[in-house]
Amino acid sequence: MLQNITQADTRTKNLGPCKIKSPLHLNHNHQGREVLYYPYIQDQEATFGGVSFEASLPEKQIYFDPNKVHAAIVTCGGICPGLNNVIRSIVLRLWYGYGVRNIWGIRYGLQGFIPTFNLDFLPFNPRVVSNIHELGGTLLGSSRGDQSPEEIVDCLERQNINQIYLIGGDGTLNAAQLIENEIEKRGLKIALIGIPKTIDNDIAFVSRSFGFETAVEAATEAIKCAHAEATSFPNGIGLVKLMGRHSGFIAASAALSQRDVNFVLIPEVNFDLEGEHGFLEVLKQRILDRGHAVLVIAEGAGQNYLNPDPTEKDQSGNVKLKDIGLFMRNSISAYFKTQEIAINLKYIDPSYMIRSIPANTADGLYCATLGQNAVHAAMAGKTGLVVSMWHGVYCQLPIPLAISQRKRIDPQEGLWKNVLESTGQPSFLPHCEL
Amino acid sequence: MLQNITQADTRTKNLGPCKIKSPLHLNHNHQGREVLYYPYIQDQEATFGGVSFEASLPEKQIYFDPNKVHAAIVTCGGICPGLNNVIRSIVLRLWYGYGVRNIWGIRYGLQGFIPTFNLDFLPFNPRVVSNIHELGGTLLGSSRGDQSPEEIVDCLERQNINQIYLIGGDGTLNAAQLIENEIEKRGLKIALIGIPKTIDNDIAFVSRSFGFETAVEAATEAIKCAHAEATSFPNGIGLVKLMGRHSGFIAASAALSQRDVNFVLIPEVNFDLEGEHGFLEVLKQRILDRGHAVLVIAEGAGQNYLNPDPTEKDQSGNVKLKDIGLFMRNSISAYFKTQEIAINLKYIDPSYMIRSIPANTADGLYCATLGQNAVHAAMAGKTGLVVSMWHGVYCQLPIPLAISQRKRIDPQEGLWKNVLESTGQPSFLPHCEL
Amino acid sequence: MLQNITQADTRTKNLGPCKIKSPLHLNHNHQGREVLYYPYIQDQEATFGGVSFEASLPEKQIYFDPNKVHAAIVTCGGICPGLNNVIRSIVLRLWYGYGVRNIWGIRYGLQGFIPTFNLDFLPFNPRVVSNIHELGGTLLGSSRGDQSPEEIVDCLERQNINQIYLIGGDGTLNAAQLIENEIEKRGLKIALIGIPKTIDNDIAFVSRSFGFETAVEAATEAIKCAHAEATSFPNGIGLVKLMGRHSGFIAASAALSQRDVNFVLIPEVNFDLEGEHGFLEVLKQRILDRGHAVLVIAEGAGQNYLNPDPTEKDQSGNVKLKDIGLFMRNSISAYFKTQEIAINLKYIDPSYMIRSIPANTADGLYCATLGQNAVHAAMAGKTGLVVSMWHGVYCQLPIPLAISQRKRIDPQEGLWKNVLESTGQPSFLPHCEL
Amino acid sequence: MLQNITQADTRTKNLGPCKIKSPLHLNHNHQGREVLYYPYIQDQEATFGGVSFEASLPEKQIYFDPNKVHAAIVTCGGICPGLNNVIRSIVLRLWYGYGVRNIWGIRYGLQGFIPTFNLDFLPFNPRVVSNIHELGGTLLGSSRGDQSPEEIVDCLERQNINQIYLIGGDGTLNAAQLIENEIEKRGLKIALIGIPKTIDNDIAFVSRSFGFETAVEAATEAIKCAHAEATSFPNGIGLVKLMGRHSGFIAASAALSQRDVNFVLIPEVNFDLEGEHGFLEVLKQRILDRGHAVLVIAEGAGQNYLNPDPTEKDQSGNVKLKDIGLFMRNSISAYFKTQEIAINLKYIDPSYMIRSIPANTADGLYCATLGQNAVHAAMAGKTGLVVSMWHGVYCQLPIPLAISQRKRIDPQEGLWKNVLESTGQPSFLPHCEL
Repeated sequence: MLQNITQADTRTKNLGPCKIKSPLHLNHNHQGREVLYYPYIQDQEATFGGVSFEASLPEKQIYFDPNKVHAAIVTCGGICPGLNNVIRSIVLRLWYGYGVRNIWGIRYGLQGFIPTFNLDFLPFNPRVVSNIHELGGTLLGSSRGDQSPEEIVDCLERQNINQIYLIGGDGTLNAAQLIENEIEKRGLKIALIGIPKTIDNDIAFVSRSFGFETAVEAATEAIKCAHAEATSFPNGIGLVKLMGRHSGFIAASAALSQRDVNFVLIPEVNFDLEGEHGFLEVLKQRILDRGHAVLVIAEGAGQNYLNPDPTEKDQSGNVKLKDIGLFMRNSISAYFKTQEIAINLKYIDPSYMIRSIPANTADGLYCATLGQNAVHAAMAGKTGLVVSMWHGVYCQLPIPLAISQRKRIDPQEGLWKNVLESTGQPSFLPHCEL
Repeated sequence: MLQNITQADTRTKNLGPCKIKSPLHLNHNHQGREVLYYPYIQDQEATFGGVSFEASLPEKQIYFDPNKVHAAIVTCGGICPGLNNVIRSIVLRLWYGYGVRNIWGIRYGLQGFIPTFNLDFLPFNPRVVSNIHELGGTLLGSSRGDQSPEEIVDCLERQNINQIYLIGGDGTLNAAQLIENEIEKRGLKIALIGIPKTIDNDIAFVSRSFGFETAVEAATEAIKCAHAEATSFPNGIGLVKLMGRHSGFIAASAALSQRDVNFVLIPEVNFDLEGEHGFLEVLKQRILDRGHAVLVIAEGAGQNYLNPDPTEKDQSGNVKLKDIGLFMRNSISAYFKTQEIAINLKYIDPSYMIRSIPANTADGLYCATLGQNAVHAAMAGKTGLVVSMWHGVYCQLPIPLAISQRKRIDPQEGLWKNVLESTGQPSFLPHCEL
Repeated sequence: MLQNITQADTRTKNLGPCKIKSPLHLNHNHQGREVLYYPYIQDQEATFGGVSFEASLPEKQIYFDPNKVHAAIVTCGGICPGLNNVIRSIVLRLWYGYGVRNIWGIRYGLQGFIPTFNLDFLPFNPRVVSNIHELGGTLLGSSRGDQSPEEIVDCLERQNINQIYLIGGDGTLNAAQLIENEIEKRGLKIALIGIPKTIDNDIAFVSRSFGFETAVEAATEAIKCAHAEATSFPNGIGLVKLMGRHSGFIAASAALSQRDVNFVLIPEVNFDLEGEHGFLEVLKQRILDRGHAVLVIAEGAGQNYLNPDPTEKDQSGNVKLKDIGLFMRNSISAYFKTQEIAINLKYIDPSYMIRSIPANTADGLYCATLGQNAVHAAMAGKTGLVVSMWHGVYCQLPIPLAISQRKRIDPQEGLWKNVLESTGQPSFLPHCEL
Repeated sequence: MLQNITQADTRTKNLGPCKIKSPLHLNHNHQGREVLYYPYIQDQEATFGGVSFEASLPEKQIYFDPNKVHAAIVTCGGICPGLNNVIRSIVLRLWYGYGVRNIWGIRYGLQGFIPTFNLDFLPFNPRVVSNIHELGGTLLGSSRGDQSPEEIVDCLERQNINQIYLIGGDGTLNAAQLIENEIEKRGLKIALIGIPKTIDNDIAFVSRSFGFETAVEAATEAIKCAHAEATSFPNGIGLVKLMGRHSGFIAASAALSQRDVNFVLIPEVNFDLEGEHGFLEVLKQRILDRGHAVLVIAEGAGQNYLNPDPTEKDQSGNVKLKDIGLFMRNSISAYFKTQEIAINLKYIDPSYMIRSIPANTADGLYCATLGQNAVHAAMAGKTGLVVSMWHGVYCQLPIPLAISQRKRIDPQEGLWKNVLESTGQPSFLPHCEL
């Protein structure tokens, strides 16, 4: 569902030529280290076939003298499993891999750069981070909302920071681009590296965002609970609301893993609530046939029924979504009352219990590798990029590319087809061809 | 906080003399097998010292011929970790321990006895139950609400049931007593055994109700999440609502285990919300001093602020509590707005994710032993009792005793003192002496 | 490290044209559904560029009439997390997706086909498999060793089996090819589908074998324990032996996830035990410098020190490896005794605790999808193939291709470079260029 | 199975009268705060009835001026889940409860007091311990073996230590008594408090040792694996060796929790290996009847078959046990070979994976409370005691009482009877009366 891009979109920037011998001694074979954007054979091969991303690798020569590096790490926006793993990995790579000794943690997101918030930098060393990967949340604290790029770059200059690692989502990467522009305008030699964060897994050209697998695992536990509730009472209905503002990856993946789910509703696929083919009627049939049902709904689904006010925004500038979970709970209750069918509806909204847990093993490996690739990129003088994984290969993307579009589930593709097959759910639209 | 009882209250009933040799061959030493109600030395020794409960042990002789036993198992009320473990243990003990072959599962609680619900009995054997302890909820299904004792005993007679195992809470035990009375009135030789279920741990003379430790474990995970959220944002407040209608055992125990909690509010201890010593003011001081706070509240706390309508009851006949969690969330938000302090408040309500999970190891052992003691009691022709654990010893209580009062936290005792010490929280009442 | 293949190697076989309308109604867009073997741009593009695998998708038309399908499922060889998930998925897809009602489980691997073992077939339906994914091991039982292909195909004919699902590793796929040959020789219309199983993740052209992520998660727990032991005592050494006969993927991945590991030894990379650059000397320096060390070793590493007897084979026909874990434990102890350094060495061999646990969430999703793709392939009359995932896309491989070579870690590639970087370990060879 | 004691044995010592007002303000009601040793009614009431232990409570007045406290914490012997929780609790109670600011961690057990080991004290504050309860092992390090009491008390004097918290087992408590004697001999005002540690749960007059429940949980996981292995292969036998040198509590409890175990062998109960009623013959019958078996054996069981050399001792002075697990594995293999029955035997020895994990929730609560009671006792000038829990009440025992005897499973009591009932195992002795 991602749109076409050109090769030019994929090239990253460099602060200058690398002339210092890297202390790493990991002679990578760079031959052919470009990963194809589209690894399928198809008609559009002419369009897609040639586009590739730069692989992410330690370089033989680096741009920065490790003794002169002053690095800053900052976490922004909502929390997500694995933040502490990324922080830890950056610190350990800088310290042990390159011998960097000046590493600073910025407190509470971009606020930490702004003098009026009066927040000290946290000095980092291996001891400070040794066990933080066992904890959820972010050791540094985070915050939402914009801060002035000029003030931020003033701070970087004042503190001699020449590497900045920004861990954050959409909004943060937008801010990062503005900071990068300001850095460039002033002609500073500061490497800015983004580590894209989104529990929804909706960043373009990033196969899988960190924390996502952990989130799916936690979501699966919530679905197990919904299933236990649904099957333990007559006409039991378990309703689980999961994260996913624009993309239903968590809902779809958790449903596919647990396979006890009967209905999945996601932002990418419209549904009718009422009418002969509408969701409520189909749910009624399921209850009459089988005596229980489990429904998973992503928070961004069905917003057409809620009419969120487009002018009401949260601190990150996103339109405030109305609560589809409560809406569905009430709609289902009301509907079955009109049908004179007694149900036992249990509503589970596990949101903070999903995003604030520690990373699982797979995310542990992934976060550590992302952090380490971020360090390699910065040490090589690369800037204005995010680290990514694509088709199983670690690579690098220019920030503008990463924020150019949003990854969403394509209803014509395998993931959603698989959900339809597993749940057996129909389209909830009249005369619909999926 | 439990009231005085007399020895007479503690004696259980028997259908008749035991004349059949038990197949168990576990010659227990019965000497001194009465467990003291009050194991402390104190002034009131005269009052309490002599009262004891009957220990729960397999007998050398039994009342029922195993070939002629027709046993029924039923689960009632809300679900709770360990229900399937208890069912499994009863089935396996009857089958392998005594050679009973007619064991039936009653579907959806007491409804399963009533012809109009048209629910088949589920035939039990070891294969059916072999893995159910890995699952939350109840294999049998459950339901709330009363059914006619006469209709139930009609069903028992019609189906030749002579042992009935009722797993349920307060309401169920009340119903059990009515069924028992009806059985006695008709002069039937049916053993009725209760296995008391309450995730709140509030049954009198039962040291620990099954599922409680699992619930505390799950509650602890929710608190960890609240702590991660609270520490990850400026002026972060994590608010967790936990189960506990009348008793705050889950809230207190989870807070004591995780030790990251700053405030615990429970039904047994009143608090002022406003005023100089009130909760909101104390919370404000904490936020100003430390920048974050974690608050755990039991669902039955602070009901004086909510004025639940005493005539509005749920299916189990309990007064419907209003939602103290949402009330506190709104109160805290409103208060800090008046104080012009920006906070980041995250509200976590994990309820169904606590009660619908499988039993942990400790509850696995406990549920299995309760189930097995229930079988021993029934086979010995005992009736009208519940199985219990008291001071670490398995024992038996007459149903009337078990429902005579409710176990609650005594604010003058160790558990609550320990909470006060761990959290450092003051009384939230004016001029209070705790 | 995989060798070159040609496009011809990648084409699968079909029993005949598909003329029956599929009940699935999941109209996939088949355009361009071939996934490139090599998704990099490079010099060898001429060699690799054109080769592609067939994607795995439900078809619009199928070969078998669901009413006439008699399907058999069999699990062979060692157990592995996810076996029950795959079984469950095949049963549920056949039953609910296509309406197949004759599904049989074969007991104890290929023995279940052979009359002398006298093993009944297990009749499958959704109820039998509903919760088996919560359990480790295999519901069907398994066994090692060959059985006569003629006897197996005799059994298939006798029982009217026309779909056979074989879940197994190397040896099983070899056997599968022999069975397939026998089927073809007799001109039978039997679809044979393999689901490749190897906890070691060493099957060619399969990006990730099912159960592998779960195994890495469990291995990580063992490493945490080794780290706790190593840091809790003076000169503490934690030594963990992990699975990996020919390939060190589990050892490498677990070390990368936990990042507390100082040394990783795998079959793909030789090491000297003694000498100036040898492992023991490097370990001694680490102990003198830091006071503790964690070492992870794959079971197939260092076999040159053990000289396994090439004629001594296990039931699956593999050369019996000698125990490198015990050898290293003894070598380290002896060496430090000669150096007069007191150490606290703890040896952890978690093998069965890794392979016999239930699948985690990610493997749950993966196993279910593999099972479902196996069913789609069989229903479409495909045969002699295995289901696979490659570059994140589900595809199909002819059995001969899957068993043509073994996937191993390439010491020149990212995974191993990453291990070297994370651990900081040197080559343990003299004058070595890694 | 514990022997009789007198009231005099139960009285603890005090350094002097308490004259300083405690900062705690937790006015406990001390009335009747003595917990009966024996809470049963029985014939021997005359003997046991009067003996009671002192309850463990915060006092209104304390002995030490918090400003003048210099506290030392030390962990000795093998590791066990919960060590870090106890350390953390002691530090937090001293710091926040009493305002103590001089708290030191002693490195690597008693070695940390001895100058020749040249180990610095670790300065403690809340930040150092904030997350250590998420980790297994001990932050302080530990060691085995005796050190000179004189040298230790020299160190205490030199460093002005006036409170010492010793966390350790049998051997450590013996050492503690010698240190206490030396302190008394020199007339020093040093409070010495022991927190008894034994994963085996074998300390007298301590209902449950910390870490034990976590160990049982981990042991249960090992049994699940053994069961999966045993049921996945023809004639599968899963053999699990668990900790328990003198007492089989872990083996018995884990078997009772999982209920998939067919045989449990513990040190307290002898068994014949061979002969008509011997274990091997019974195991054979089970295999012939059911096709699989799970066996759990405590490390101290069956030592009569191994003849450990009583002069060969480990660093803690315990006789080195021979490995009963390997012995049984070999004996079983050899026996079935003579019987010409092919078996699939899997041996699981999870030892370090049990003792080195973090504490679970129940142990988290328990460890924190023990630590806090230790602090209350020390601040009140009590000395030469250990903190304990008895019949669910926290209390205090003089060290000589705690080391006077060892707690073991009584084969005539409920726990073992329950194991026999659950497993259905017979006595493995000829002409035996259980």
